[in-house]
Amino acid sequence: MSESSLQELVAALPPGVVTTEAATIENYRHDWSRDPSAGTPIAVVRATDADQVQATVRWAAEHKVPIVPRGAGSGLSGGSSAVDGGIVLSLERMRKIEIDTDSRVAVVEPGLLNAEVKAAAAEHGLWYPPDPSSYEICSIGGNIATNAGGLCCVKYGVTTDYVLGLDLVLADGTAITLGGKRVKDSAGLSLLKLFVGSEGTLGIVTRAILRLIPAQPPRSTIVGTFPTVVAAAEAVVDIGRTLRPSMLELMDQTSINAVEDYRPMGLDRDAAAMLIAQSDAPEGAREAEIAIIEQAFTKAAAMDVFLTHDADEGELFVAGRRACFDALDARGALLLEDVGVPVPVLPKLVEGIVAIAAKHQVEIPVVAHAGDGNTHPNVVYNAAEEGARDRALIAFYEVMDLAIKLGGTITGEHGVGRAKRRALPDQLGPDVMALTRKIKNALDPDGILNPGAILD
Amino acid sequence: MSESSLQELVAALPPGVVTTEAATIENYRHDWSRDPSAGTPIAVVRATDADQVQATVRWAAEHKVPIVPRGAGSGLSGGSSAVDGGIVLSLERMRKIEIDTDSRVAVVEPGLLNAEVKAAAAEHGLWYPPDPSSYEICSIGGNIATNAGGLCCVKYGVTTDYVLGLDLVLADGTAITLGGKRVKDSAGLSLLKLFVGSEGTLGIVTRAILRLIPAQPPRSTIVGTFPTVVAAAEAVVDIGRTLRPSMLELMDQTSINAVEDYRPMGLDRDAAAMLIAQSDAPEGAREAEIAIIEQAFTKAAAMDVFLTHDADEGELFVAGRRACFDALDARGALLLEDVGVPVPVLPKLVEGIVAIAAKHQVEIPVVAHAGDGNTHPNVVYNAAEEGARDRALIAFYEVMDLAIKLGGTITGEHGVGRAKRRALPDQLGPDVMALTRKIKNALDPDGILNPGAILD
Ligand SMILES: Cc1cc2nc3c(=O)[nH]c(=O)nc-3n(C[C@H](O)[C@H](O)[C@H](O)COP(=O)(O)OP(=O)(O)OC[C@H]3O[C@@H](n4cnc5c(N)ncnc54)[C@H](O)[C@@H]3O)c2cc1C
Ligand SMILES: Cc1cc2nc3c(=O)[nH]c(=O)nc-3n(C[C@H](O)[C@H](O)[C@H](O)COP(=O)(O)OP(=O)(O)OC[C@H]3O[C@@H](n4cnc5c(N)ncnc54)[C@H](O)[C@@H]3O)c2cc1C
Repeated sequence: MSESSLQELVAALPPGVVTTEAATIENYRHDWSRDPSAGTPIAVVRATDADQVQATVRWAAEHKVPIVPRGAGSGLSGGSSAVDGGIVLSLERMRKIEIDTDSRVAVVEPGLLNAEVKAAAAEHGLWYPPDPSSYEICSIGGNIATNAGGLCCVKYGVTTDYVLGLDLVLADGTAITLGGKRVKDSAGLSLLKLFVGSEGTLGIVTRAILRLIPAQPPRSTIVGTFPTVVAAAEAVVDIGRTLRPSMLELMDQTSINAVEDYRPMGLDRDAAAMLIAQSDAPEGAREAEIAIIEQAFTKAAAMDVFLTHDADEGELFVAGRRACFDALDARGALLLEDVGVPVPVLPKLVEGIVAIAAKHQVEIPVVAHAGDGNTHPNVVYNAAEEGARDRALIAFYEVMDLAIKLGGTITGEHGVGRAKRRALPDQLGPDVMALTRKIKNALDPDGILNPGAILD
Repeated sequence: MSESSLQELVAALPPGVVTTEAATIENYRHDWSRDPSAGTPIAVVRATDADQVQATVRWAAEHKVPIVPRGAGSGLSGGSSAVDGGIVLSLERMRKIEIDTDSRVAVVEPGLLNAEVKAAAAEHGLWYPPDPSSYEICSIGGNIATNAGGLCCVKYGVTTDYVLGLDLVLADGTAITLGGKRVKDSAGLSLLKLFVGSEGTLGIVTRAILRLIPAQPPRSTIVGTFPTVVAAAEAVVDIGRTLRPSMLELMDQTSINAVEDYRPMGLDRDAAAMLIAQSDAPEGAREAEIAIIEQAFTKAAAMDVFLTHDADEGELFVAGRRACFDALDARGALLLEDVGVPVPVLPKLVEGIVAIAAKHQVEIPVVAHAGDGNTHPNVVYNAAEEGARDRALIAFYEVMDLAIKLGGTITGEHGVGRAKRRALPDQLGPDVMALTRKIKNALDPDGILNPGAILD
């Protein structure tokens, strides 16, 4: 890539869109996983509309320059780590939104934050459910590219369940529209769903049509503490047999302690595990739902059960849960896990993780979207200590191996990115890897879209 | 394809699996659309396990023999119409099922009927929601291959929302497993979702893991009759703003009359349209939900509103709705439509259909899964009358054109099959067709899997 061909791109776009300034470039090299192997791009392109995205991709296709699409950079698996000699294509400036109340959809550009979409919908009494813990700092484009999950997924599903339409720019610069404001569509292959969760490797999202649902009533919160993680997991399985609470999160003892150390809020440090459940059932049906949750807690030998109908008070516990990441960040260097297993084997996963942590002398606190078996057993280590990162890395892969052995996945919601790429073949096997490669090659034969993410 | 190579296949499979008997072959040439252009296969293979499916596909791949996968043959778009010189691969004998109550999933072979999956889940207090009107006569494999919808989709979503895992045999005979019993999974491309709705053109489903949810309480039914179809459609939009009823079906006057002619049940022949809504909200919340529906009906100038909490009485109306297909079948030859539009333009679609029917002197009664804008304006004509089929065909394509112009789809749930293949490019455009072709070519370069379905 010659300097002069980059000048072509600069000339093709309005002033300020392409930056080659070193300080800016540094700011766009990493996502939240701070991938140490992230490269240095030759430029950052901050497009303000789909035409600019298309112009950029056409230019990159012509010159075979790698493009790393980037939303808000809150990713936890190095999906938007920059690539040496490539460009970072940031979508953060594409921020239009329109709520169509009759069709009950939001038509959004990718750069809006998840929280902004929620807020715009709420103005019309509507709700966009998917709620990653990072909802205030992650973009809708990134959510779509990773098929983001969150806390309400146990009842309301994940991002893909809400995507009705996408505008995309493909690897050769073709702009396409898939789906639309219709709720049901069986015409042709499910291409729409293929692009959701493709982590920027198949196309760049420039617009999305998102399904909204009527706003739900304020939630009641039920918090239980348990003598063992197994007991807590049993309560989770039990609840799942009869209802779908609007939230069912787990924190193990190490996480509780990490949060208490970081931001004391009076959580019970003696509890082996804590469950935070919520019910948003309509008034009238609420009491019955809470009773089922409380009974399941009690049956699983809960040490303490606390109920509040005050949404703000409930939010304090959820905020505690959400603080886990920051609490751990303050504790040492991190390797971020996102393994998921079938709900009934959650206890086995957590037990196995305890053993792995002991074996490699690292701390592995577990927080989980327990209701759907998706856990974040993040490996904490002391970066200054010799050999600690190596031990942590071994633990990191052992946790993924364990999840695979238990019929699970190496990533429930964060995506593979670059951080989990090496483990992907262990989960999918050679035939599914070959199939993945076939589709990637068919859509991006030169491999310019986010090279190194998902696939080598 | 020589006679001797077919003998290879016969020899490779247990006795009774391959049939070349003319009477059997005739029985496997058509689905319910009775596609007049259906071909004559050289054999019907009725596999009893995945190994036999794999052996069949390997043999077909070697000899480049087209395979038409077939479930129960209830399809309405010629998706399983046989192909001259090909084989029909029926999955109807693969009927194992296992309910895992802790993981809350059903592990099923494709030949089970939808109703059988529902019944097996119900034994454990669980529910498999997707409910095509044909649920007693269609297979789960066919449902997955078409991404089948139904009546409860307005609240509970379509088939793809319930598929957690698939075993598939690919075009070259490779057997793969995608997904599993875990609820959330972001590892790699969303291949699982790509296969759902692919109508047997990318792979053959030999096993599925289906998400179940807790059984819902018996439903209340609210029936309203309206002076105009527009009024009924306005009630639909209105309801959608505040709640998601568990059913919201529409029948227009022509459909009401067709059902009354076929099976008199005292429906109001003077009504321009009828809405059948159901609520399965939990006790306590039920009354409020019903009140919203009743108010929306009244606001839209309903002539008559009828409410019953008796599930059996409510089921009579739903059975009337389900009888539409048979009622029309008794009335003449049919061209089966499945167009969907954004809910707010439902009135425009229905008005336009009235005009198309008048213009071409055909009858086009409309029944609709109104809550999600998916309609079945089936074209009825007298096959004995000269020129009638031609006029009907013109009307058939004009209805699809109209849906496309209104931002809709040519098929909301039945799939493209062979019947709607010509109209698909009008909806998707050349770029998305090219993308579709790329994926088909990447996965099935010799085009042996269901050639003629979706793509030419
Ligand atoms: C504290 C914290 C908590 C979190 N909790 C959750 C959680 O509960 N659930 C969850 O799912 N995630 C969670 N995450 C992870 C992260 O927020 C999500 O993965 C989010 O979806 C990333 O969005 P982003 O805009 O930041 O994307 P980025 O990090 O910028 O990019 C993520 C991936 O998407 C691609 N991409 C971004 N925009 C586009 C586009 N427009 N077109 C094509 N590709 C694109 C990138 O190339 C990259 O592969 C959390 C993160 C943090 C820091
Ligand atoms: C009276 C009536 C009412 C109906 N109502 C509805 C409705 O409300 N909603 C709805 O969605 N549909 C409805 N249908 C259409 C039909 O029942 C569905 O499309 C159903 O999903 C087809 O299932 P099947 O087993 O009969 O499949 P088939 O008709 O045998 O095949 C359908 C398609 O799936 C493919 N296929 C079948 N099995 C497999 C497999 N194991 N692997 C790969 N490909 C496979 C075939 O090749 C074909 O392309 C209705 C049909 C009738 C007759």
